Amino acid sequence: MRRSPLIDHLKTCVTLSEEELSEILVFFDSQTYKKKETLLPEGKLCDKLFFVEKGCLQLYFIDSLGNQKTTQFAMENWWLTDFLAFQKQTPSNFYVETVEKSKVLSISFSKHQELLGKHPKMEKYFRTIYETAYGAALMRIKFINSLSKEEMFCMFRDSFPEFVQRVPQYLLASFLGLTPEYLSEIKKKQLS
Amino acid sequence: MRRSPLIDHLKTCVTLSEEELSEILVFFDSQTYKKKETLLPEGKLCDKLFFVEKGCLQLYFIDSLGNQKTTQFAMENWWLTDFLAFQKQTPSNFYVETVEKSKVLSISFSKHQELLGKHPKMEKYFRTIYETAYGAALMRIKFINSLSKEEMFCMFRDSFPEFVQRVPQYLLASFLGLTPEYLSEIKKKQLS
Repeated sequence: MRRSPLIDHLKTCVTLSEEELSEILVFFDSQTYKKKETLLPEGKLCDKLFFVEKGCLQLYFIDSLGNQKTTQFAMENWWLTDFLAFQKQTPSNFYVETVEKSKVLSISFSKHQELLGKHPKMEKYFRTIYETAYGAALMRIKFINSLSKEEMFCMFRDSFPEFVQRVPQYLLASFLGLTPEYLSEIKKKQLS
Repeated sequence: MRRSPLIDHLKTCVTLSEEELSEILVFFDSQTYKKKETLLPEGKLCDKLFFVEKGCLQLYFIDSLGNQKTTQFAMENWWLTDFLAFQKQTPSNFYVETVEKSKVLSISFSKHQELLGKHPKMEKYFRTIYETAYGAALMRIKFINSLSKEEMFCMFRDSFPEFVQRVPQYLLASFLGLTPEYLSEIKKKQLS
């Protein structure tokens, strides 16, 4: 069987035989991308769901001033797309781009539907993934509405230390709603 | 069979026999609450998932200055809880409270697990619910990071007109991250 980190990730949530795992993997395409490659552009039909085997993706949009704003990152074992547009098969409201060289699995909407139909255990897997992601998004909105920018950075650094090391600082600043200069000031202050 | 709006909502997503629907409903408790009743307090084990049959709930927290901040509302056919705490069976990071007199179904974590085990079609239902909710939360974070407070209000009013009519203005202001005075100013400006 082709090896993929997805197999281990599936096993953390659902019990699947080796045969089932093999069958499931067939639904996915695997591709390696360079840093800063666009996997899905804004405005194009959102027909792909991505799983990061290695590397890092970001979900971003361009604001009215032309600034790139990061809404979500996805590192190893994370899923990413414009989930609403994927579900409704409408144009994407975001870009999906690699932050670093990445190995990514992708699945189209029709293949995803077929996968769920043939392997209903995958419903449990995705239910768990989305339940966690939605719960975390509500916590993030709570933090946005209660923490200062400095507190946001500290909480994020303490929760995801590897992440803060790996992601370029201008993207981290964009994700936290800061200017890169202000993030740099906060980091200096934290060190002193 | 006991009638519940949940039945119609389930039918929009999954095909279930009348017998299955009856069996599923048995897992839930139904209760009517007065306006401003607390269904789940912050800090208490989050052991309930709520479905609004009639009325409106809010998910809120108290910030460091003692202000009540609304993170999410749920009207008819919406599910609400601290989803992360429910999944992990940890203390809730939010309060769940009625905004108006409400009729609510609730299910405990163990009953929910039992329901999913006995009726795997419910995995598909909840996968769809959480997929939509997570996608919508990412869109909301995009709006928070790109729209002015006035644009946020207009977009929200145009997307959910009934909601803006029904929810008290101080709660709507809290949800949109505004002071009630500023929301009142925006509304006056929009009318003129």
